[in-house]
Amino acid sequence: MFRPPTVAHAHCDLYCGVYDPAQAKIEALSVLKSAEKYQGSDDAVFKDRALFIKEERAELVKHHLMVLWADFFTADHRQEFPELDDLFWRAIHQAGEAKKSVDPADGQKLVDLIDEIAAIFWKTDKAKGMGVYPPG
Amino acid sequence: MFRPPTVAHAHCDLYCGVYDPAQAKIEALSVLKSAEKYQGSDDAVFKDRALFIKEERAELVKHHLMVLWADFFTADHRQEFPELDDLFWRAIHQAGEAKKSVDPADGQKLVDLIDEIAAIFWKTDKAKGMGVYPPG
Amino acid sequence: MFRPPTVAHAHCDLYCGVYDPAQAKIEALSVLKSAEKYQGSDDAVFKDRALFIKEERAELVKHHLMVLWADFFTADHRQEFPELDDLFWRAIHQAGEAKKSVDPADGQKLVDLIDEIAAIFWKTDKAKGMGVYPPG
Amino acid sequence: MFRPPTVAHAHCDLYCGVYDPAQAKIEALSVLKSAEKYQGSDDAVFKDRALFIKEERAELVKHHLMVLWADFFTADHRQEFPELDDLFWRAIHQAGEAKKSVDPADGQKLVDLIDEIAAIFWKTDKAKGMGVYPPG
Amino acid sequence: MFRPPTVAHAHCDLYCGVYDPAQAKIEALSVLKSAEKYQGSDDAVFKDRALFIKEERAELVKHHLMVLWADFFTADHRQEFPELDDLFWRAIHQAGEAKKSVDPADGQKLVDLIDEIAAIFWKTDKAKGMGVYPPG
Amino acid sequence: MFRPPTVAHAHCDLYCGVYDPAQAKIEALSVLKSAEKYQGSDDAVFKDRALFIKEERAELVKHHLMVLWADFFTADHRQEFPELDDLFWRAIHQAGEAKKSVDPADGQKLVDLIDEIAAIFWKTDKAKGMGVYPPG
Repeated sequence: MFRPPTVAHAHCDLYCGVYDPAQAKIEALSVLKSAEKYQGSDDAVFKDRALFIKEERAELVKHHLMVLWADFFTADHRQEFPELDDLFWRAIHQAGEAKKSVDPADGQKLVDLIDEIAAIFWKTDKAKGMGVYPPG
Repeated sequence: MFRPPTVAHAHCDLYCGVYDPAQAKIEALSVLKSAEKYQGSDDAVFKDRALFIKEERAELVKHHLMVLWADFFTADHRQEFPELDDLFWRAIHQAGEAKKSVDPADGQKLVDLIDEIAAIFWKTDKAKGMGVYPPG
Repeated sequence: MFRPPTVAHAHCDLYCGVYDPAQAKIEALSVLKSAEKYQGSDDAVFKDRALFIKEERAELVKHHLMVLWADFFTADHRQEFPELDDLFWRAIHQAGEAKKSVDPADGQKLVDLIDEIAAIFWKTDKAKGMGVYPPG
Repeated sequence: MFRPPTVAHAHCDLYCGVYDPAQAKIEALSVLKSAEKYQGSDDAVFKDRALFIKEERAELVKHHLMVLWADFFTADHRQEFPELDDLFWRAIHQAGEAKKSVDPADGQKLVDLIDEIAAIFWKTDKAKGMGVYPPG
Repeated sequence: MFRPPTVAHAHCDLYCGVYDPAQAKIEALSVLKSAEKYQGSDDAVFKDRALFIKEERAELVKHHLMVLWADFFTADHRQEFPELDDLFWRAIHQAGEAKKSVDPADGQKLVDLIDEIAAIFWKTDKAKGMGVYPPG
Repeated sequence: MFRPPTVAHAHCDLYCGVYDPAQAKIEALSVLKSAEKYQGSDDAVFKDRALFIKEERAELVKHHLMVLWADFFTADHRQEFPELDDLFWRAIHQAGEAKKSVDPADGQKLVDLIDEIAAIFWKTDKAKGMGVYPPG
């Protein structure tokens, strides 16, 4: 795993760290699960907690998506994959919808949008060598 | 991916969300990369930024590890895998060491410890169905 | 300023709170000022602090911009102002550039992009009645 | 907008960034709006979300007010405007009251106190040149 | 209180700051109090706020405990006090339990576990000179 | 330690949790220690870390002080101890000074101001029964 410092460690990407759409997806799965648990319970305290955990996790989804959109994806990627901007708007917007909703379908829709983003992510050269468990 | 609400959505795991050692590993890779970039640069501003990004990412590693240790792993798991407590102490402690150090070897050691934890994680039944990219 | 509860307080915008591009601009001005102060000083401690204040403020700019883009602006707005997506990508991306740079011109470019966004914001009907100091 | 580095960029105000009472007011308006929406709805999930958004926004109000009080306003200002300390105590305390209350009048009272602070803010020389939309 | 810089200010503990189990205990007492207040009230808004304050405070308990375990306590301490790992697991895990529960007994159990940790803390040489109000 | 729910658990103090000036003091001691360590080292990485730890800890001091001032202390306390407002302004302002300074004397001055506040805190009836290690 160790890669010695090379000229490739350019200034331009220091703040990027390591990108992986898994970060957004893990939180989105929590959003989905919280809505499911909300529906499956009749305990008021439990339901209440499901709501604010969902709120918090959806906020993290938004953050991770914004990082992918504006830090990982370059102007060139956006030309190569012209659907990117719209896809990200819909995904980040959907994270907001999933905050408001207790319908698991809204969480699922968020997960699906992140899967679409991930599919593009793994097609790029920049993603080569990234990811903890890159798709086989 | 959608799982309808069932009796399995017990109280006991609401706050857990979705567990995946990838969260800790992604941040640990950022710690490692920041140390590498620090070493590979002679630009003072760039090096400075590498230091505080490393600091911040190492803190996130600690958080994700604590969640795995005390929320995901149960008392039963700790009996089955008696090395767990020590492994977690060393990993969380190593995140602190990696904060202090600019030697990439310290970041690598952190990554390796998380890999050891992940190996145990994926052996448990509780991890079945978890993870964004579960190992094949 | 007090507006009694009416049917207009629909679900669809609860999480939105009150929007104002001033939030992003105030932080962007801090980014700009930090770069200027970095340049204008020869005190190592002072310069160091300027760097991490700039880092932190640029992160807040990104957050405020993401909220405007995906929570304030609707799908309809994006049709009416087709430059919006690109403008937001460039502004959020520029916040990242301003993190890396100590050139005040990068902070200024960020401020200018936010001004472009604000100009569109204030053209929308949704912005009517918003803002602490709406433009005269 | 660009102001070249000058002797005026003294150490004494680096951490201050750019001050604007609009930051506190925007969050206070969110507090007010959340209470109004809470009152105007009979949807339990919606009302719940209004409560924790109000909580979070009121906390931000407190933070922004503290910054104005102890970072923007100087010992000299406090002599010139001897009501400042009491005004700030009442405003920060009122943010706490607005957390506890679902009466929009408590949010409105918070907004009014911030307006009083803003009026003093804009009277100072230090505020000259500050603010995104300084009052005309 | 002022201690001039000496050889004791080694690298190895810079990030540690000042340790005191009081930090964890103060938050744990808030958790306990929130559960008590939840039980003692029949006001829905008040009860709701008690729940999310409890959530937030329990999270802070976990953080402070993790810092004590992996930053304050050394490998040597863990040999001298072999119960430490288990004690910390149970305390951090109990903070999670106290999040889920509205039974004050769960908050009390958390406080008691922190008291056990504090008793060991104050027995160590490293704790000498630490603490704001060290036990008499 | 367990106190059963009683009429004393009034609305008016839910959000207060448990107050203890120790929280501000622990962080202030970290600020002081960071300045001392900065002075005592000639390792650039170490010194850098001391600076941003000091920054972060000073911010926490400010937060804890604001909570004491506006949540713990009442309007009545402020009449009984008319020096309170000025003392808090000076302490919160001093936390800002200690951010900017690497002179341990600035950290010590912050600690001393918190000690003055603590002395008043423990004189109040409201503080009875509070605190983890109340003064003997």
